[in-house]
Amino acid sequence: MNETRTEIASLGEFGLIDHLCKNIEIQNASTVLGVGDDAAVIDHFGKQTVVTTDLLIEGIHFDLMYTPLKHLGYKSVVVNLSDLYAMNAIPTQITMSIGLSNRISLEAIEEFYEGVYAACNKYGVDLIGGDTASSQKGFIISVTAIGELTPGNFVKRSTAQKGDLLCVSGDLGGAYLGLVILEREKKIFLESPGVQPDLENQQYVIGRLLKPEAAKETIEFFASSGIKPTAMMDISDGLSSEVLHLCKQSNVGCVLYEEKIPIHNDARNVAFKFELDPTACALSGGEDYELLFTVPQADYDKLVLNENISVVGYMTEPEKGCKILTKGGNSFDITAQGWNAFQQ
Amino acid sequence: MNETRTEIASLGEFGLIDHLCKNIEIQNASTVLGVGDDAAVIDHFGKQTVVTTDLLIEGIHFDLMYTPLKHLGYKSVVVNLSDLYAMNAIPTQITMSIGLSNRISLEAIEEFYEGVYAACNKYGVDLIGGDTASSQKGFIISVTAIGELTPGNFVKRSTAQKGDLLCVSGDLGGAYLGLVILEREKKIFLESPGVQPDLENQQYVIGRLLKPEAAKETIEFFASSGIKPTAMMDISDGLSSEVLHLCKQSNVGCVLYEEKIPIHNDARNVAFKFELDPTACALSGGEDYELLFTVPQADYDKLVLNENISVVGYMTEPEKGCKILTKGGNSFDITAQGWNAFQQ
Repeated sequence: MNETRTEIASLGEFGLIDHLCKNIEIQNASTVLGVGDDAAVIDHFGKQTVVTTDLLIEGIHFDLMYTPLKHLGYKSVVVNLSDLYAMNAIPTQITMSIGLSNRISLEAIEEFYEGVYAACNKYGVDLIGGDTASSQKGFIISVTAIGELTPGNFVKRSTAQKGDLLCVSGDLGGAYLGLVILEREKKIFLESPGVQPDLENQQYVIGRLLKPEAAKETIEFFASSGIKPTAMMDISDGLSSEVLHLCKQSNVGCVLYEEKIPIHNDARNVAFKFELDPTACALSGGEDYELLFTVPQADYDKLVLNENISVVGYMTEPEKGCKILTKGGNSFDITAQGWNAFQQ
Repeated sequence: MNETRTEIASLGEFGLIDHLCKNIEIQNASTVLGVGDDAAVIDHFGKQTVVTTDLLIEGIHFDLMYTPLKHLGYKSVVVNLSDLYAMNAIPTQITMSIGLSNRISLEAIEEFYEGVYAACNKYGVDLIGGDTASSQKGFIISVTAIGELTPGNFVKRSTAQKGDLLCVSGDLGGAYLGLVILEREKKIFLESPGVQPDLENQQYVIGRLLKPEAAKETIEFFASSGIKPTAMMDISDGLSSEVLHLCKQSNVGCVLYEEKIPIHNDARNVAFKFELDPTACALSGGEDYELLFTVPQADYDKLVLNENISVVGYMTEPEKGCKILTKGGNSFDITAQGWNAFQQ
């Protein structure tokens, strides 16, 4: 292959920013001033502003060996939007800062930004600022996402009530199974570089890992159906960890039914092939970016109209603890084995 | 010394966040919901929101060998607030994300956060969120700062007019001279660890580097005096680079008087000792975090009441270029030799 490689240093910092931002089109009326000054200006017209931020580091949060840069750019945006949706907010703006080692060419950064802009377009958000820095080692990504909602309409993690239904959007465990596949292929490649990867029928779970989507449609469904969850958070560290977190913050217990946990058929097939328990993948795998939320029982009739939402349990008194009821009819304490940033 | 060292991993991510955030007291009524959920919520009560972000990487932006962590925490906040003041905004909230290698203990992070909170208190801003991540190498800091202003009251870089006065706040070149001293002491220490550092009478310039302040008082003076600059930006990369940037963005030229450039006496003395030209330090050194701004000539009488503001030149037609008039009476083109993130 004869690919062009342009060194970032040949553009300088301002040149790089101009180059990456030249095609930005503002999508939100609230974006009064975007990229190119000391700061950006937003007008929220009497709405409340919601802010979240994530730091992603090469070798910790992503492996460039099997992560296409375009997908990485897309995912960097989506994981932040997921946090805004988890507040019941509509994303409107992001800032994107990147730290680059000299290993990374301009062409690579362009690919990354293609993904960033694809996510911005899909979710209707404006890129309004950022920072570019040199990094001695590895690629560093820091995104801050800003959203809006009607005053008082945000949903916290700490307000679930006894008797509420426990629900999740989409399906779980897929992203973890995608990771298992790609880690295996990486190992095979490193040992025998000539072997072609065996990725057949695994697109779904690999896509769940590399190019996740945020739960925009679920939030829109809430708005159109007049549902306001009593508590909500996004599922980034595995269902167990998030359920425990929501119960602790809300001071309630819960019963979670194993058979109700939504798992995609393709994920089940991959789990079978790797001799993994699909339920364990959903409980302890991470990066699904679905929503975990609670609603009053009275909302059940509205919820069942949405095929993308599963009622997986209900909330109890705190003394009853956090239990999972297995398909075999046994009850166990839910334990967190999700991803922990400092215990890899 | 017998210092305690606690490993971050012993707390886990949530434990670390709880520990670092337990003493937060909200200072702004606009902070509806702070740290601890998927995102924070801000109400700006009909004001416009201003957003800026910076990424700081160990070995590129700071050297832990001579940067006390408390000062680093303070500075990480201040450099972002400086960008908000440069828009004529009042800072209200920040998010703080950090990437930590296992070299860094809990005690070290506590020191860093002491500085973060000191800056938050001094400038009246609330820490409302952030992220903590592992880093394979080096300490990584990403800050996003949010401020507010009356709708339409922001000041861009691109709106200076021919005939406007060119002004700077405070004094320039000090931070660069502080860096020169600390780099020399580092070199001496690495060659002869027993030698005591010679830092006498150099506190001022070292303080300018390690613990800079943002131009809060200048913005407050504008508000109380009824001044709205025609254009403004902060001086982080050296006066030359910023003047050229402002002229280019505004499509004007300028005349800058060497003798009017404000330089602190302590900075002059250090420059003399190191045989450096103090003007060159002001023009090409960075990290002063003062404001560069333009005002109509009619505001001159108001400006002279403020000893902290220097009129250093005036704006001309773009065809006349960007000139510096030296003390010797010569006129030269201003050239940018400021810090560039990709040409170190």
